[in-house]
Amino acid sequence: MADTQIRFGILGCAEIARKVSRAISLAPNAALYAIGSRSLEKATKFAASNGFPESAKIYGSYDAVLDDPNVDAVYVPLPTSLHIKWAVLAAEKKKHILLEKPVALNVGEFDKILEACESNGVQLMDSTMWMHNPRTAKMREFLSDPDKFGELRSMHVVFTFAADPDFLENDIRVKPDLDALGALGDAGWYCIRAILWANNFHLPKTVTAFPGSIFNKAGVIISCGAALQWEDGKTATFHCSFLANLTMSVTASGTKGSLHLDDFVIPFQEKEGSYSTSTEAGFTELVTGWVPLPSQHTVMTDHPQEACMVTEFSRLVKSVKSGGSVAEKKWPTLSRLTQLVLDAVKISVEKGGESVSVS
Amino acid sequence: MADTQIRFGILGCAEIARKVSRAISLAPNAALYAIGSRSLEKATKFAASNGFPESAKIYGSYDAVLDDPNVDAVYVPLPTSLHIKWAVLAAEKKKHILLEKPVALNVGEFDKILEACESNGVQLMDSTMWMHNPRTAKMREFLSDPDKFGELRSMHVVFTFAADPDFLENDIRVKPDLDALGALGDAGWYCIRAILWANNFHLPKTVTAFPGSIFNKAGVIISCGAALQWEDGKTATFHCSFLANLTMSVTASGTKGSLHLDDFVIPFQEKEGSYSTSTEAGFTELVTGWVPLPSQHTVMTDHPQEACMVTEFSRLVKSVKSGGSVAEKKWPTLSRLTQLVLDAVKISVEKGGESVSVS
Repeated sequence: MADTQIRFGILGCAEIARKVSRAISLAPNAALYAIGSRSLEKATKFAASNGFPESAKIYGSYDAVLDDPNVDAVYVPLPTSLHIKWAVLAAEKKKHILLEKPVALNVGEFDKILEACESNGVQLMDSTMWMHNPRTAKMREFLSDPDKFGELRSMHVVFTFAADPDFLENDIRVKPDLDALGALGDAGWYCIRAILWANNFHLPKTVTAFPGSIFNKAGVIISCGAALQWEDGKTATFHCSFLANLTMSVTASGTKGSLHLDDFVIPFQEKEGSYSTSTEAGFTELVTGWVPLPSQHTVMTDHPQEACMVTEFSRLVKSVKSGGSVAEKKWPTLSRLTQLVLDAVKISVEKGGESVSVS
Repeated sequence: MADTQIRFGILGCAEIARKVSRAISLAPNAALYAIGSRSLEKATKFAASNGFPESAKIYGSYDAVLDDPNVDAVYVPLPTSLHIKWAVLAAEKKKHILLEKPVALNVGEFDKILEACESNGVQLMDSTMWMHNPRTAKMREFLSDPDKFGELRSMHVVFTFAADPDFLENDIRVKPDLDALGALGDAGWYCIRAILWANNFHLPKTVTAFPGSIFNKAGVIISCGAALQWEDGKTATFHCSFLANLTMSVTASGTKGSLHLDDFVIPFQEKEGSYSTSTEAGFTELVTGWVPLPSQHTVMTDHPQEACMVTEFSRLVKSVKSGGSVAEKKWPTLSRLTQLVLDAVKISVEKGGESVSVS
């Protein structure tokens, strides 16, 4: 491992940690350094099957990872209810933190994590991978173009997947003591983030859950949706669910243009991402076809989006570590805004669709 | 004109009548026979520039068209507020009726039209062209496939277009005395129809308008949306507006499959229509891509969808005319269900987003 590489420790052997381990291996400025699990055996197996170097430290606890002075940064894929404990501890041990989403059970908890990171000068970033795909930057360019897209008027986002019976029974995302936010915290997080992203992270005035949210027996949301409303008349909706075939679509309409894609969270293919746009679309003379036709765009990426994320995170960590700068506030700010809207949607869901102010 | 062709009279010179005139010319079993306008001059010009034969009857009133015993069927593109008067009169004169959407200002009015059609034995069909595109039948096949799509769980439809200042000031669709249903009656009609179509025309239990409907100074809806909710937990949303770039997207998610298209009302190109589907979509082992990838489908059509519509309508008319059958009830039933939901959405919009039962 080069000295310029950020040394990662991973807390726990979650399934998603396999993908992020590979991303750390792929990122030129990051290295797999340690893994900790409550079971040393699990940690050993995980390291062996996920590309950890022979020299990697294998620990039988999360604490041991945090106590290792050579660990620069930790990746925290633990259940949401454990984020506050372990992220705060990590910050206190001066570890930079790549934190799985949802970042906390609510914004109050997240603020405690934020405070710990700020007072310890560590970088915090949530693991919303698609934000780091080069496609996302190209789409942002389109949405920011006053001639091609104009002003956003409405946005509609769907993220569903068909969880199998085992998931619906046993996954942490259906357990009230683990990931109590259920489908809203999982798939809904991405929808809300996409809507905020397209709105330059201006908060909506209100959120209003749709009727018909579905809960499991333990009271965890497994399907819901909401309408978001801005002061200026802009509107957005999202729907998230564990109960329908994999769907990841974004449709954004501006005064002058439209954007669409069907794989916003995980691109259909790892190294390329497509989307379609149209600008000032109208019809042929007799309204029998469109003029102009929408355009298809494909953006290639050398590294998958999760490796881009790790690279960006590690760049920021490196900069803090070398004393060149303080921790970048942009990323934790975006996490907090996303959590804020998510909290409001949850309240609206619980109140059966009452409109809830976002503040 | 062959004896086997249904002779059409057109009431008024609306812009949309140009497209339907061409469709009548293209349909093998239909013929342009008469045009009536309150201005003989306008009617003459319309006939000359829209492919009417030299022998066509040009009338200076709608009544004259209805009084012509050779007219088999009328196409009624008049403003919605005039539908009840002219459709009822047409039925009383035993003219079969192809009626522009929305079919009426409310279902009460439509029931009077229905009654007139039934008691006079004439065929009624609304002019929702996309229903007749061969693509629609192929998509219906997919949605009905228990293995490829399963049971519909959620559906999201958007139809917006950016009306220009002249439209927003002068078009009949922004005038309370002409098309009082505004964007809901125009773009919203298609969204509601698509949602009902995908649901095999089972009515939702409730509709709930989103906050933030936009009205013009005269109180006509120019942007709104709603969530629709079924007894079994199925959910749908739509958004319609005159204030954003042309967008026509449908995203339907079932327990096993998904359907998407971006041009459901007017296909991008006249003679072909595409859509994408996916079935039991999942991810690669490390969740870095989709398996399987969605499939693209293209359906060719010899005739544009509006000509398919005229052909189907004329076939039904021919069948009634020849005494072979009574008027087909399917199409007016679909019109009525669409209007019923539209009425409920309008009430919910007016009540600021209160949930409204559909019955």
